[in-house]
Amino acid sequence: MDRRQKSPPSLQPPPALPTPPRPTTPKGRETRARLLASARHLFGERGYGLVRVSDITDAAGISAGAFYRYFEDRRTLMLELLAVFHEDVYRSVSAPWDPDDPRASVEATTLAYLELYGENHDLFGILIELAPSDPQGAEIGLYARRRFHIRIEHSLDRGIREGTIRPDLDTRAAAELLGSMTEFYAPQRFNPGYGSTSTAPLASIAQTLADVWTDGVTRRD
Amino acid sequence: MDRRQKSPPSLQPPPALPTPPRPTTPKGRETRARLLASARHLFGERGYGLVRVSDITDAAGISAGAFYRYFEDRRTLMLELLAVFHEDVYRSVSAPWDPDDPRASVEATTLAYLELYGENHDLFGILIELAPSDPQGAEIGLYARRRFHIRIEHSLDRGIREGTIRPDLDTRAAAELLGSMTEFYAPQRFNPGYGSTSTAPLASIAQTLADVWTDGVTRRD
Repeated sequence: MDRRQKSPPSLQPPPALPTPPRPTTPKGRETRARLLASARHLFGERGYGLVRVSDITDAAGISAGAFYRYFEDRRTLMLELLAVFHEDVYRSVSAPWDPDDPRASVEATTLAYLELYGENHDLFGILIELAPSDPQGAEIGLYARRRFHIRIEHSLDRGIREGTIRPDLDTRAAAELLGSMTEFYAPQRFNPGYGSTSTAPLASIAQTLADVWTDGVTRRD
Repeated sequence: MDRRQKSPPSLQPPPALPTPPRPTTPKGRETRARLLASARHLFGERGYGLVRVSDITDAAGISAGAFYRYFEDRRTLMLELLAVFHEDVYRSVSAPWDPDDPRASVEATTLAYLELYGENHDLFGILIELAPSDPQGAEIGLYARRRFHIRIEHSLDRGIREGTIRPDLDTRAAAELLGSMTEFYAPQRFNPGYGSTSTAPLASIAQTLADVWTDGVTRRD
């Protein structure tokens, strides 16, 4: 059985959100940013489901009607928050990769991800809450996940060419499995209801993950 | 830094569900089982949120009033389905462990889990849907997860004593990380919205996971 069955990776960015055109004046941009920041704060505090548009405009000190100059609705605003946030996450785990020391790169990337997740677990929690029922919300998370997996897969493929990774590894499956390890540890640690019991510092978790990860895929001979 | 910070494992089974007493007659037991089976089918078909008690009793061919002789409400029935199901899952991944060939044991356990997940991804989907909003539903999933992690942790601790596992491993963190790999790959593969792209047969995924896992934790010297 060939264990390296590959279809060409298909990665389409999620479709653009139906938001009104971006404001062109400094004041308009500031108002829009203020609405995003208020919503970010309130969603984090109460969860997405319990926040109304009027709560957001009250907190931002902006009239209720003005909201719709900047956003189609509450859901569109939330989807934009998620998209911007995932872009930040992707940038933070795209730190320079040192091919001579993959272990250190995995450790640094993992620690960056876990710290960012810890600081924003409320937003990640919203994504977990929405994914099953909001296809567009799920799409945003899915795109981020697949970009992450493709990045791991390419690193593993390069390692095979360079002779550091075991040549029989199904790099696509391994990338998804290894990505799962990072991605699913985080909600267990930070989101109530997924409770992890390990209390070791995040730096130490990242070290354990990097050890397991790199030894799990490198050649032994 | 001591990487093996351990608190005593606290594992309390979820509190018993407030269901009416089990029927004692064969006919009563059969009726109750019929309600469970109808609900299982309908939840799988439409999702938990869209199924009413009357749908369940109609499908089971039982009067609406009789339902409440067997279950407190729709939610209690669902929680019981989940509890019974998780018990089945746990049994299926508790296959005999061969200390001389951990790789084969991990592979068999992983394949059993993935196959069971594939056949029941609708029920797992309900758990994903409910966990953030239903503390008792989350509790059932959490209990299953922690039993699974404790089992891995004990295997790793035994491996350290027997000299097969690297002695510096934080076995609790490793157990949670390794458990995440299996547990989170599955929804990506089977639940829409978590989409995995690897199309390799499950047997091959289980093999890749077992390779990565065992090489990731065993001694190299």
